[in-house]
Amino acid sequence: MAIPIELNKWVKEICAGNVRALARAITLVESRAPEAHELLRALFRHSGRARILGLTGAPGAGKSTLVDALAREFRRAGKTAGIIAVDPSSPYSGGAILGDRIRMQSHHADPGIFIRSMATRGSLGGLASATADVATVLDASGRDLVMIETVGVGQDEVDIVELADVTVVVLVPGMGDDVQSLKAGIMEIADIFVINKADREGADRVEKEVRAMQSLSPRLDHWTPPVVKTIASEGAGIGELAEAITQYEEYLQSSGLDVRHRVEHWRSRLEEMLREEVLQQVVRTRLDAATAERYAAEIAEHKRDPYTLVDEIIASLAR
Amino acid sequence: MAIPIELNKWVKEICAGNVRALARAITLVESRAPEAHELLRALFRHSGRARILGLTGAPGAGKSTLVDALAREFRRAGKTAGIIAVDPSSPYSGGAILGDRIRMQSHHADPGIFIRSMATRGSLGGLASATADVATVLDASGRDLVMIETVGVGQDEVDIVELADVTVVVLVPGMGDDVQSLKAGIMEIADIFVINKADREGADRVEKEVRAMQSLSPRLDHWTPPVVKTIASEGAGIGELAEAITQYEEYLQSSGLDVRHRVEHWRSRLEEMLREEVLQQVVRTRLDAATAERYAAEIAEHKRDPYTLVDEIIASLAR
Repeated sequence: MAIPIELNKWVKEICAGNVRALARAITLVESRAPEAHELLRALFRHSGRARILGLTGAPGAGKSTLVDALAREFRRAGKTAGIIAVDPSSPYSGGAILGDRIRMQSHHADPGIFIRSMATRGSLGGLASATADVATVLDASGRDLVMIETVGVGQDEVDIVELADVTVVVLVPGMGDDVQSLKAGIMEIADIFVINKADREGADRVEKEVRAMQSLSPRLDHWTPPVVKTIASEGAGIGELAEAITQYEEYLQSSGLDVRHRVEHWRSRLEEMLREEVLQQVVRTRLDAATAERYAAEIAEHKRDPYTLVDEIIASLAR
Repeated sequence: MAIPIELNKWVKEICAGNVRALARAITLVESRAPEAHELLRALFRHSGRARILGLTGAPGAGKSTLVDALAREFRRAGKTAGIIAVDPSSPYSGGAILGDRIRMQSHHADPGIFIRSMATRGSLGGLASATADVATVLDASGRDLVMIETVGVGQDEVDIVELADVTVVVLVPGMGDDVQSLKAGIMEIADIFVINKADREGADRVEKEVRAMQSLSPRLDHWTPPVVKTIASEGAGIGELAEAITQYEEYLQSSGLDVRHRVEHWRSRLEEMLREEVLQQVVRTRLDAATAERYAAEIAEHKRDPYTLVDEIIASLAR
């Protein structure tokens, strides 16, 4: 880890918008190295100004193109953007994310848009936690807008986009029963729905289905998520989407829900951070690779029961 | 918690196959109550005999019908089965699982098939960990086959079905690009592929896609997952599936991989158990609801930085 004076210089560079310093910081944070704490602690002070936007939806819904178009829209208004593309299932493949990155970086040689792909789900840390920390770094670096884009519709994706102040769920016509199958988990977290590729047949039907669902289970906070139709590849509807985002943010502010949400956010993130830190400590001090292997072998042979072992390890921590 | 003599009686009843005692045990284990440890510790000794089968695939692939048919196939051979149907996204809906349970229980009034649905994902415990413990209970109760069925194809589902000795991935024709989109995460964990609803158009194409993918990235262990075509609703292909499962198990045994897998399993499960236990302890002793709320509010107002707070809480544990 850098000595404090080095750290200070680094933090200053990040906050001044130095892209190389920013990239280095994200790499450290992403590695979940214990040293990242020092840096995050220093950067936290400078965070809290960015708008954090989460986007999710089924594969093939055109999320990347949409994020891309939205970033350009914000750039036109003189704002800077940071994009975090997260693929929780990617330790197994890795290709999609890389393709994404190349595609998007070829799109802009604009330092006002910073793109980072995240995939590795280390066994010692939650991807949601790592994503949140990267968002904090981007926030501290002065990006006006931080977009977190996830691929897929599982619980991981829900956890990740819930880090955001505003959550956009991207639907697309012609996915059959998909609005139905998305119902569990994803539909409930949308503050704004986007029907992308809206020139395709069935866009109206998707909208009708979303509306039907909304009338069945209205949100407790009385916000009815608007449905915005876009054709991201042509830039159509992007202005309307930006407007919908602004409207929701105004609603949050006027209702005082923004404060409530931020507290909720920190409550769950604090727990996640604790979970991660404590486990790292336990593993570092009580369960190095060789010990873990030996224990696992003994359990597999039924020479040891795992429940007693866990209790013993935890009791040893208290000593 | 029951006093030891009560616990002993309970364990005996469970191991004797008493269904009510079994149901009560699962309820305790599922609740993640600290008392469950005692029971699991006692039951662990009786576990390790069941075959654990994991099944996953996209919604609508007919997994439940397949699991159902497979259970009946095993019953015909005089074996007992336990089924755990897990839906990680279900805190948000809950309907599907309940429907499942009703459907499947109406199918058999056979005590030789025990079905349990799991959905709640408590913030303090991983669903994968809870599922593993429930599987241990069913195993100890003398079930010959324990089937873990998950809805969906996210990382949670991967974590859950990886608990199994044998993992079956269920595909279905006519899902468009779905074999492609399943590629990341799910395809790699399949020991056996099932193409269900194989009388539908496109079954051959799905098989071809799976084969193509296999030839591109063969497994390191030299096992080529067979592709079994079924029409679960008519019972077609179920015998072949049972046979494929047996063949894979024989392969595991003859190659010695079964031992290796079990050690791997316990290594990651041990870590997960530790993570869960330690967090429960931290929350119980350092982060009750009121304290968490206060901390979160202070962080949200930037009066406190979360990284320092986490370090402080952890340091206080060591005292």
